[in-house]
Amino acid sequence: MNEPLALGIDIGGTNTAYGLVNRRGEIVSKGSFPTTGHGTVADYIVAFKNELGPVLDKAGKESMAGIGIGAPSGNVFTGEIVDAPNMPWPGVIPMAKLVSEALDLKTILTNDANAAALGELMYGAAKGMKDFILVTLGTGVGSGFVANGQLIYGHDGFAGELGHVIAVRDGRKCGCGRHGCLETYASATGIVHTAEEWLKENNKETTLRTHAGSITAKLIHDAATQGDAIALEIFAYTGKILGQTLADAVAITSPQAIIFFGGLAKSGDLLFSHVHTHMEKNLLHVYRNKVAFLQSALPDADAAILGASALVW
Amino acid sequence: MNEPLALGIDIGGTNTAYGLVNRRGEIVSKGSFPTTGHGTVADYIVAFKNELGPVLDKAGKESMAGIGIGAPSGNVFTGEIVDAPNMPWPGVIPMAKLVSEALDLKTILTNDANAAALGELMYGAAKGMKDFILVTLGTGVGSGFVANGQLIYGHDGFAGELGHVIAVRDGRKCGCGRHGCLETYASATGIVHTAEEWLKENNKETTLRTHAGSITAKLIHDAATQGDAIALEIFAYTGKILGQTLADAVAITSPQAIIFFGGLAKSGDLLFSHVHTHMEKNLLHVYRNKVAFLQSALPDADAAILGASALVW
Repeated sequence: MNEPLALGIDIGGTNTAYGLVNRRGEIVSKGSFPTTGHGTVADYIVAFKNELGPVLDKAGKESMAGIGIGAPSGNVFTGEIVDAPNMPWPGVIPMAKLVSEALDLKTILTNDANAAALGELMYGAAKGMKDFILVTLGTGVGSGFVANGQLIYGHDGFAGELGHVIAVRDGRKCGCGRHGCLETYASATGIVHTAEEWLKENNKETTLRTHAGSITAKLIHDAATQGDAIALEIFAYTGKILGQTLADAVAITSPQAIIFFGGLAKSGDLLFSHVHTHMEKNLLHVYRNKVAFLQSALPDADAAILGASALVW
Repeated sequence: MNEPLALGIDIGGTNTAYGLVNRRGEIVSKGSFPTTGHGTVADYIVAFKNELGPVLDKAGKESMAGIGIGAPSGNVFTGEIVDAPNMPWPGVIPMAKLVSEALDLKTILTNDANAAALGELMYGAAKGMKDFILVTLGTGVGSGFVANGQLIYGHDGFAGELGHVIAVRDGRKCGCGRHGCLETYASATGIVHTAEEWLKENNKETTLRTHAGSITAKLIHDAATQGDAIALEIFAYTGKILGQTLADAVAITSPQAIIFFGGLAKSGDLLFSHVHTHMEKNLLHVYRNKVAFLQSALPDADAAILGASALVW
């Protein structure tokens, strides 16, 4: 008999990526197709089945251990995607059920950051750890908290929303309707917001000014790398807010490490020297100099698939 | 053979209370002796043995399942009391080891708020819950976080310090050396601090003014009950800060309930109407109207003993 395989699926706002993964975290085969352009969810599921049915037939259904799905606003208890802002479909989508019916396999779904935390736990930087936090710094900020070796889902499956902890009281308006959420500052979107705001507020010299109105996180990163003082200050400011917020999270779960993943997580010392300084400065003494900062150990393109597949085992 | 019993011990700054507890949470016998007045830790352990040796002999050592201790700044992994500010002994005390050697029984020690959370889980308001937060509002603010049915100890045993989450950035100086910790506002000490501060800052009429310089939490409570506007406002202010901080904690562990314990937890609607309003107001939509507020279901005098005994099972 073939070795057991899990089908890991990452449903993003634009693309759906998938891979057949063995227990050791090796991707046997992979592919992707568009999430958008299908009109209704039912149409998407048809495309889903057309794409993945042959993949499963080829692998041999008897070797399939199940399907794991990571998706924004995914809920592990209900298998639903709930009001995901960047998905083509509004409202509540019973995605695990739809997929399970379409492919006739046990299907588990959770949110993308939780899946990433499981991926790090099984195959990545958190192997062997019992207590850590995974923080995704991308368009938004996501997180997965692991305590006692288990993901914290909370009583209703929605735990781990570090991006919506209030980092700045009465701060920036967030897409969630509240003010001052961490992700309005410490995400790719947030850092761009900071830059555009600062350019309006003062006349200091910066290479960013020529891009005012269309600044990107990459432009800020490149400017900072070139020594642009304002760009460096933007990273320092972002790092301070993230560090302060992480200090409060550490006081709750006392993790061995915080693992960073996502585009902004690649800023290196430009960002993380400040994050670390301000986290340590704001930690209660019992936590100081104990929490490791780690980069995700999973290859970018595969991390979401590996994380989703980890749900199955 | 007799039914198995656990010896639950609550080591407080003033008194050490103990009880023999069966698996159903019934206290078979109990007592207490002073924590203070023993000079060294070794002297305290001698008194400890003199008091508890006969208790164990009477119960019959063969029925003893073990000893559980709750103590401020207690660490479950090391069995140590670490730099507890209100204890007669400074530094690191290997209390579990000392007690285990003195009484020749397996001994487990954790911090008092964690023990309280276990007590609620086994015998109290959290029976059958998998995800909740226990918050003690006493002289300070303590907490125990339970996720997936297990207490979160963190990688080093120091998790669950909600009292030292920064509730007000650059706020009041805390005993821990930092500024703005929740316990500088939402404890008996904190609410008194607020009252004394407000009396200095304005001349508004309040029955509290005659007690300026020696206000107690009870005086504020009594004044509020009598309709004193300033005292009511003090509760509203305290409740707002506590509610805001709880909203951030909910975003991390998504609990089914928050259970309140301790002196200030008895303020009823004077405090908790505001706590609830401001927590809900600051919650991300997915958590709204889901988190129950509960009072501890353990009798005051016995809660710490029951919690400590729960460590044994």
